[in-house]
Parts: sequence; structure tokens; C-alpha cells
Amino acid sequence: MNVTVRGRTKHFRTVAFDRAANAVLLIEQRLLPHEFKIVATKNFRETAAAIRDMIVRGAPAIAAAAAYGLAQGALAFRGSDLKKYSTHVETVYQTLRSARPTAVDPVNAMNGVRAVMRGGKTVAEKQSLALAAAEEFAGDSVRHCEEIGRHGAKLIRNGTRILTHCNAGWLACVDIGTATAPMYAAQARGKQFHVFCDETRPRSQGATLTAWELAQQKIPHQIIADNAAGHLMQRGEIDLVIVGSDRVLGRTGEVTNKIGTYTKAVLAARHKIPFYAAIPLSTIDWNLRRGFDIPIEERCADEVLGVWGVLADGHHSSRKNRRAFIQVANPTSGARNPGFDVTPAELITGIITPAGIFKPAELWSRRRELGFFQSHD
Amino acid sequence: MNVTVRGRTKHFRTVAFDRAANAVLLIEQRLLPHEFKIVATKNFRETAAAIRDMIVRGAPAIAAAAAYGLAQGALAFRGSDLKKYSTHVETVYQTLRSARPTAVDPVNAMNGVRAVMRGGKTVAEKQSLALAAAEEFAGDSVRHCEEIGRHGAKLIRNGTRILTHCNAGWLACVDIGTATAPMYAAQARGKQFHVFCDETRPRSQGATLTAWELAQQKIPHQIIADNAAGHLMQRGEIDLVIVGSDRVLGRTGEVTNKIGTYTKAVLAARHKIPFYAAIPLSTIDWNLRRGFDIPIEERCADEVLGVWGVLADGHHSSRKNRRAFIQVANPTSGARNPGFDVTPAELITGIITPAGIFKPAELWSRRRELGFFQSHD
Repeated sequence: MNVTVRGRTKHFRTVAFDRAANAVLLIEQRLLPHEFKIVATKNFRETAAAIRDMIVRGAPAIAAAAAYGLAQGALAFRGSDLKKYSTHVETVYQTLRSARPTAVDPVNAMNGVRAVMRGGKTVAEKQSLALAAAEEFAGDSVRHCEEIGRHGAKLIRNGTRILTHCNAGWLACVDIGTATAPMYAAQARGKQFHVFCDETRPRSQGATLTAWELAQQKIPHQIIADNAAGHLMQRGEIDLVIVGSDRVLGRTGEVTNKIGTYTKAVLAARHKIPFYAAIPLSTIDWNLRRGFDIPIEERCADEVLGVWGVLADGHHSSRKNRRAFIQVANPTSGARNPGFDVTPAELITGIITPAGIFKPAELWSRRRELGFFQSHD
Repeated sequence: MNVTVRGRTKHFRTVAFDRAANAVLLIEQRLLPHEFKIVATKNFRETAAAIRDMIVRGAPAIAAAAAYGLAQGALAFRGSDLKKYSTHVETVYQTLRSARPTAVDPVNAMNGVRAVMRGGKTVAEKQSLALAAAEEFAGDSVRHCEEIGRHGAKLIRNGTRILTHCNAGWLACVDIGTATAPMYAAQARGKQFHVFCDETRPRSQGATLTAWELAQQKIPHQIIADNAAGHLMQRGEIDLVIVGSDRVLGRTGEVTNKIGTYTKAVLAARHKIPFYAAIPLSTIDWNLRRGFDIPIEERCADEVLGVWGVLADGHHSSRKNRRAFIQVANPTSGARNPGFDVTPAELITGIITPAGIFKPAELWSRRRELGFFQSHD
């Protein structure tokens, strides 16, 4: 999407590749919204570190970064020995895989690149195929988001007031985003609408990333405390909720997403406000049988007890140390910090996918349309 | 309640009076939880400034501060001229009243002190009666909280896991608190239980004040992001919700309280978790006919866009400037910041008052027991 830096507007993908420099280009997300910077990783180890250290985050974005990282590593191989090449690629694969060990998307993306690479007979052919496959993966990812946007844009009319939670935007993808895709598509069709961004404590992705994205695209929006959505719904000020998801259960329609999503869904149901999750098909888990079995990551207490941001003037000696962590809570108190929650199908109006909008209960019966290929039970 | 400073535990009221120094003693709440300090106001103007600048906050606490401030101002008068005394007291009254112009509790408290003062024939008598009335007001406030605790403690058993929102604790009162009163009473009866404190963005009163209070009283507790309560309820980890209130409508049972309260009530109802509001009788508004008419204060956007706290080491040159405001959100985004919300009676299990626990729908029919004295239509 477009980013305006010092008055100049330019298009950027969250994850891209510089063929001449053999570098993966990433938006440094840890500095947003206070600073916009592109990081060029010099080699696959730097790419793995960027994934690990969350310079890039969001399942589709880290998947693309891993696919490019694998191609980057493959392209760095010198020589024509196929066996040595294969050993080298395995090292690259394992290094990138271990950067975010619980994420499944980077593994799937890299497996796809490796499968294509097998079609090459020489090292040079394999290297070339690896990059082509990574580029195709990234391109497909963008097209999937475009399709989500095309279907989801129909939900947005002139005057619609949308609530979103966390960041399922283009910063979490290669471009366009999932929950934001219908918004960007509606904007392209000339629709006028307003977005409320939940702050999304404890990591504030709504206030930092989603708000920054929407500001860059000039979409009218306001940030609200997570506590305020219920009141706004009660007063009739929200018409539609769109969120992303980390895992949708194909068998039950349950939606796993950032902590607080379930709360917004309960509120939306009470106020008869449509509630949608927007996802690429790769987010559907066809195996798990009930949401209660989804492991909910308990994150560190410090995220709840304080917050990262930038200091106002007078509290820092240089631009460099403006970024700071501030302790907010009583320091002798502990915290519970579940990272995700699970929203049952009954609270969800629809799942917006590249293949169309589906009721959560019909995912399983329409699984062939939704990319269910493996044989189960 | 008890506060432990450098290993020594001592009892403090949030608001007290030093007769020898003619000073109102206030816990400096803006420094909590990071620093505990008692401010002694030298005269009624300083007391008014302390109310205005939120050194003291919470309706019962500022009511007591105003009552003491009026007595403090009266006692500072030199001479025996009744007319001059009366003019002076009027100045004191107006100064204290204008410190928080929308609050009704300080006005009611000062009117009570003035009514008692009328019984005195000389300036000295009036001065003495003013202080006695202020002391009685503060003492009554504490007794009311004790009664709330006595009734509410019955709701807490061994193992009960309680959720509370914002701070309706002893820091908001003269002592003991309203929502916290049942907890302190249950603790005194030897009950073992656990409290989850909602962070309560945007001003974080749960993470700062309630968590500090509970830590001082050694009540086991954890802070949670406002987003986490729904997930904890879904997983069966919360048994009871107790909050305070800024205004309960006597005619409808609707509860006005800090933004986010309505959300917690909706979640509690879905999970069949009892939801109580604990209030002194002065919080009941017998006039207003529907919650929709309650004016909801829209507060400044900065509260949502950033947060106050203390800096970790390395980001400050001295202890004095550790306290800082940090900008979290995208700086070019705006915010909506409603300060309160209104919870309908259907979501509230009961109202805990000094006169017992009432169903919200029965407040009106039992208004005589609840201090409804004025004649209304």
C-alpha cells in the first residue's frame, strides 16, 4: 500500500525482494508508527533474525519472508555440486523454520518453494525456480487479499462505521491485508466510511499499526480504548465488525484471534451488529475438532504491566533513545496475559475468504471449495 | 487501610484532618502506585487545588475533602464578626465547589456542614460545629463502606475468583472503599480468594490504584488487560464481578460507571456470572428517568493515545523526572474517549448498599429504606 514519507507517496509491500542485492526487504514494524524504515536483510540468517525479532509479524507476512529467505539462501550458494547445494538449502530451511517455531505458515510456504525447486536439474535451475516460487507465493498472497477485499467490500456502504481489533492489515500480509482488505477495496470504489480501531492492549497493535495504516491510506478513523466499543455499540455508533484470525476451525467455524476478539463478538451479537472474520484459506485448520483444544499462549506479564512508546520532548537526550518502555501498573502486582481467545461460530455472521463469504457452520460442508485437499477421517 | 512504607505498616485514611495544623491530609494519588506520599494542605485554597488537580479523586473522597476544606476555611477565620464570618465561609464554599464543578457529592457534603454550622451562635461555636460536622461526615462515610462490606462479604467464599473494574476502593473513599469493601470484609473473616483487576484503560486505575490497594492489604490478585476478562470467563476462571458506580438510577436500576463496565456486565450475563455494583446511598439518583439521558463525558484524546507511568532506568537523569507520559498510538490518528457507560438493570444481579443487597428493579419500590426523602411527583 502507499506510504507517505516527507511528503512523497510511494507504494511498498510489507515483504519484498531485491534481486540485485539478494536481499529481503522488510518494513521495520517495531518502529511504527513513530518511524518508517525499510530493512534489507543481507543473508538468510539476517532474514531469520528479522522474523524472530518481529521486525516482520503477521502469519502471511512471515510466510512470505520465509519463502523469500529460502530463495535468498539458495541464491547465495556458489558452485554446482547438487549434494552440497541440498545440504546448504536444508540449513537455510531449518534456520528460518526455527525463527518462529510455533508458526505453521512459514513452514508451509517454504515447503511450497522446495517442491517447485525439485523440478530443476542443475543448481542454477533450482536457484532460479526457488526465487520464482517465492515471488509466486508472495504474489498469490496479494491476490488472495485482493479477493477478500472484492467479496468483503460489498458489506461496506456509504456511512458504514466499522470496528476492527488488533492488526490484520497489510502490515500483517504482503500487501492489502485481510480485515483491512474490504476497507481498501471499498475506498477504491469511492465509498465513504469510518473505522474505529480498538487500541488492542496489551500490545496496542490497533493503536499503533492499524491506525498508522489507515492514516497512510487516508481512511477516516479513530482509536478507542478496548473498553469503549460496548458503549459505542449501545449508542448505535458501530454498524459492522471485521477482524482477522490466526486460526479458523474448519469443522466448527470457531475463530481464534487476538485477545479481546471474543468480547467484541459477544457485544456485537447483543446489539445485532454483523461480525465477520477475514482470512486467507491457509488460516483454516481442518484437523482440530474443538476450539477448547487450541493452545492459548500465555505471554509475559510485562506487556500488561507497562507499554512501549516514544517519549515526549524533555525526557530523552537524543532521537535515538526516544523509544522507551514505561511501567504503568503497581510493580508488586502480577498479571495474567492470555494472547488469544476463541470465538464460537454462533457469534460470527460470516467468514470472508478469497473464495467468497461463508457462514461459519458451512465451512465443513463446503470444504472442497475452500481448499480442503488432504484426506481426513 | 494499611500501607507499608519501608517495612513499617500504618493505617491511613485517604482523607483526614490535622486539627493542630488546621490541614487536610490527603494521599497524593497521582504518584501511586510508584510513590506513597501524604499531602497536607495549608489552607482551603490548597484543598480546592488538590481536588481540582486530582491529588484526591473518587466521589466519596472528594466529598470528605470538601467537607474538611470547608471546616478548615471556617477555622482560619479570625474575629467574632458574624457577618464577616458568613461572607468568608461563602468564599470558602464557592472556591471548593468550583474545584470540580460537575461533581454533586462535594456540594451535598458541604451543604450538610453548613446546615450544622447554623446551630452555632458565635463564630467560635460555628467553627467548632463545622469541624465536628466534617468529622461526622467522614466517619459516616467509613461506616457506610463497612456496612457495604458486611453485606457484600457474604458473596465471597473460599476460592472465589472476583473481577473488578477501575478503582472503587478505599482510595476513592475515606476508607475501605465500595467495590473493595466486600473483599476487605471477607479477608477479615479469614476467607481466601483471588481478585482480577481490569487494567481499565485509558486511565489505568485498575492497574495502578486497585492493584496497589490490594497489594497493600495482601489480597492475592493479578492485573489483566481489559481484553482478557471475556476469555477468562469463557474458561470458567471468574466467579463474581463487583464494581463501583458513579450514579445508579433509582427508578430503573441502571448503573453508570467507568467505561468498560457495560462490556464486563454483558460478558458476565452470557456466562451466568453474578454481577454486582457496590455503592453508598448517596450514589442513587432518584430523579433521572432513563440511563440514556445521563450525560457521558467525552474526555481528551491524549488519554487514549498514550499513557502515564514511570521510566525504567537509563531513561531519566534523576528520580524526579522518572514520571513521564509516553505516546503509544499513531500520532496522526484521533481518538474517541467516552469516560463512562451505562449498564441496564437486566445485566445486574444486585446492588450492594449499606442497607443491604437489592435487585436493581426493586430500588424504586424500596426507596424509603434507601434514603429517598424528597417528595417527587
